[in-house]
Amino acid sequence: MKNQMESHIMEIESVLAKYLPKEEGMAKTVISAMNYSVNAGGKRLRPMLMLETYRLFGGTGAAVEPFAAAIEMIHTYSLVHDDLPAMDNDEYRRGKKTTWMAYGEAMAVLAGDALLNYAFETALKAFECEEADAKRISHALSILAEKAGIYGMIGGQTADIEAEAGEVDLPRLLYIHEHKTAALIQASMMIGAALAGADNEALSSIEKAAYEIGVAFQIQDDILDVTSTFEKLGKPIGSDAKNNKTTYVTLKGLEEASREQKDMSNHAVNLLKSLNNRGYKNDFLIDLIESLITRLK
Amino acid sequence: MKNQMESHIMEIESVLAKYLPKEEGMAKTVISAMNYSVNAGGKRLRPMLMLETYRLFGGTGAAVEPFAAAIEMIHTYSLVHDDLPAMDNDEYRRGKKTTWMAYGEAMAVLAGDALLNYAFETALKAFECEEADAKRISHALSILAEKAGIYGMIGGQTADIEAEAGEVDLPRLLYIHEHKTAALIQASMMIGAALAGADNEALSSIEKAAYEIGVAFQIQDDILDVTSTFEKLGKPIGSDAKNNKTTYVTLKGLEEASREQKDMSNHAVNLLKSLNNRGYKNDFLIDLIESLITRLK
Repeated sequence: MKNQMESHIMEIESVLAKYLPKEEGMAKTVISAMNYSVNAGGKRLRPMLMLETYRLFGGTGAAVEPFAAAIEMIHTYSLVHDDLPAMDNDEYRRGKKTTWMAYGEAMAVLAGDALLNYAFETALKAFECEEADAKRISHALSILAEKAGIYGMIGGQTADIEAEAGEVDLPRLLYIHEHKTAALIQASMMIGAALAGADNEALSSIEKAAYEIGVAFQIQDDILDVTSTFEKLGKPIGSDAKNNKTTYVTLKGLEEASREQKDMSNHAVNLLKSLNNRGYKNDFLIDLIESLITRLK
Repeated sequence: MKNQMESHIMEIESVLAKYLPKEEGMAKTVISAMNYSVNAGGKRLRPMLMLETYRLFGGTGAAVEPFAAAIEMIHTYSLVHDDLPAMDNDEYRRGKKTTWMAYGEAMAVLAGDALLNYAFETALKAFECEEADAKRISHALSILAEKAGIYGMIGGQTADIEAEAGEVDLPRLLYIHEHKTAALIQASMMIGAALAGADNEALSSIEKAAYEIGVAFQIQDDILDVTSTFEKLGKPIGSDAKNNKTTYVTLKGLEEASREQKDMSNHAVNLLKSLNNRGYKNDFLIDLIESLITRLK
């Protein structure tokens, strides 16, 4: 798995390198800030899920590549703006200065805007690919816009900001997990499926599985913050409790949260495995998802 | 002209009302902030130029409407982020509190992001229109993304921020005017033309004319800041000089700036009028542009 994983990450890095803008011209500074943010690392989870779901449904050809780059740009812009002093006020991420610390606040606002805009600019390049299927591409673009916007990720960020000011009950917490985290996981997998020509039934299975994967992924975060160690996690544990943050663990207790997390994960994996009956099979995708949900860091 | 103008503005307002998101659900606050920002007023110049250029080339049908709403959302998001404390730190715009003053900084960052994302989400609805032409729509989407992004408006904002810190020469000032202001004017008119099926020759005339209109519009701003009065402008004059800001007037002198502004305007109008020979005629568009460039406020 580990070697396989590395070769997949290298695949994504080369796709990203192909689509990131060149640092030149009058806009050079904002372009440097964009590339700095994208190249600050990360698991490349979303583009990988997209590529592997595309393969699951027999997708071939390059139309998925600009979308894989686009989803990472959108994920990155959301981090750049989240880290701003007016939002989470984070100075470091993965051991590197956050974008506003490295480039200043004004440039970080612009770099986030630029990444969001460039995500669409990049995804639109799919229309120029050989054998481009305009219907599938326009469908994929609509999924991207919806899941990243007010009915997706931005909706989750809004509810999350408001949650800091008041009581959080289970429906609100699930809304936040579903939208802030799961929506982009859904976009990744659904875009892969849509571009490969999956039918509506398959697409709806993918939407459901990706919802459970995203929420399980987030609950695992909440659990690790209680059960892990600084050494394993590479960051301080117990930060949720310290910040008085309502999590799935505080609302349900550790045992129940773990049980539900496992149920969701199993259900998602079984949903994906059931697609085998229709001839859709990708063992690496199953391994990838299992490793994500049961991860210890 | 004035009555005609009012009915055209009302047309745009009803298109906007149709496409702005409903203020409901868990994301209600950010949606309110989006709508507050769009409904804070403004001349609706960009959607109007788009609709009238569409008509110039004989466009009919509704595919242009989502794009008209989208361009105003993009213009608005750029103002929302420009007004942030980390950027221009403006507390009022057109006599109303800016978005961050009304909703807080974090929500203003999100509202700007949401407007940019929703602009694409809205423009993509053109694919659902009756008799949608996928080729024209994907072309229009590419124009929108390019002119709003790092090779368009965001490039201009980047150079503008950096200009505050150092010397500005004529090439840099022209780059800023071209990208920060003219790029969205170009997008507006080119999208109207592309959706109506204008050929490449016509599209390139429009791109050129819109460049001159945008730059002339901006130079007129620089001129009015020296020659107008508080009463006419509704805001303090002389603010450029007070802020030591390099403008077309400080670089070229008032007389030369006025002369070049008139040359550009005349050239743009003549370019548009020359399309009459090919059977493309829209007198209101000509009147609109002439009134913009010669405006006294």
